[in-house]
Amino acid sequence: MKEERISPKVIERLTKYLRCLENLPQEDYISSEELAEKMGFTAAQVRKDLSNFGEFGIRGKGYQVRNLYADIEKILGVHKTNNVIIVGMGRLGNALFSEPEFTKESFNIVGIFDNSENKIGKEINGIKIRDIKELEHFINRKEDVNIAIITVPKSVAQELTDYLVKCGIKAILNFAPIKLNVPKNVVVENIDLYAKLQELNYWKEKVLK
Amino acid sequence: MKEERISPKVIERLTKYLRCLENLPQEDYISSEELAEKMGFTAAQVRKDLSNFGEFGIRGKGYQVRNLYADIEKILGVHKTNNVIIVGMGRLGNALFSEPEFTKESFNIVGIFDNSENKIGKEINGIKIRDIKELEHFINRKEDVNIAIITVPKSVAQELTDYLVKCGIKAILNFAPIKLNVPKNVVVENIDLYAKLQELNYWKEKVLK
Repeated sequence: MKEERISPKVIERLTKYLRCLENLPQEDYISSEELAEKMGFTAAQVRKDLSNFGEFGIRGKGYQVRNLYADIEKILGVHKTNNVIIVGMGRLGNALFSEPEFTKESFNIVGIFDNSENKIGKEINGIKIRDIKELEHFINRKEDVNIAIITVPKSVAQELTDYLVKCGIKAILNFAPIKLNVPKNVVVENIDLYAKLQELNYWKEKVLK
Repeated sequence: MKEERISPKVIERLTKYLRCLENLPQEDYISSEELAEKMGFTAAQVRKDLSNFGEFGIRGKGYQVRNLYADIEKILGVHKTNNVIIVGMGRLGNALFSEPEFTKESFNIVGIFDNSENKIGKEINGIKIRDIKELEHFINRKEDVNIAIITVPKSVAQELTDYLVKCGIKAILNFAPIKLNVPKNVVVENIDLYAKLQELNYWKEKVLK
């Protein structure tokens, strides 16, 4: 593995390969050309992306779907279950928690948190909403909670982030429309729903012209 | 305006400029260097992005925050209100509908749809959930409904998309983890929550090493 300087675009494409492979017959082989065509990339792109992580596939035969799927899962660390907490149990937090499609087997939601007295103590699907103040204690007791999904208002997102980092969280999936400042050893991915709508709107205006 | 072949990355960055500008004093001027620094891009990138759409800013002074904001909104077509429907009133659809933060003034949710008898006819915030079968009639009656947000299971997303296209929808924001096939004059943006978690997990594993 030479995984030295992988671009975020490569990792994004890996998740797309997974999406594509999961819908194919698992015993079959697929060539980089076929995979590329399904994805709308070039075969060279597919080979280059995968070559970042080692040797895959058999010359003349291509990649076995099941093996390539398993290999990419391993690269992403989703061949195992990763513990996750959700902070902010408004409608969006609730939706993310309640729909197994979003987290699947690879992510295990071990705690849900809020700061509102109306919500703390209530149960959703058998899990109690905890007071965010208990987080440090919760993480110290539980092993291996590194990932937080935060669905809180923009106005409190940075303050919450500072607290999460202090508690030992290493990865944050942020839905608040704000660029979070974190130390170098903490990673953030953003999902900005409004920004996506804006992008879509630009392309819509183009096709309507 | 020479807007010929704009890359999706440019449009994505435009939405980030907006996010950045909205938090700055509106009367102030900002140079491409300052804007670049806030964004984590280079000043050349900022100038190049904006030059795709015309001449902005004043030599030696930079861009006036309020004007640049308004200009970018215009480029994206979000200086006006765009009508939107949501199809799929499960938890996620409900969250997107109910949180004004996601759609703001630029997008006006004019209809919400589902195919479940349990949901059709119920009201959320004073809007009735309609039968998806009424969509064609709804669009014919209402002017200017081009955008659909779809939050339906993967298994029905393509079939629904075909129907939306038939009804005249031109832009789809898709939350189902599947690549939708659409005609050339229809645009799709995808938000794949599970894929984002997978990406985040990769970077988390790197920082934990």
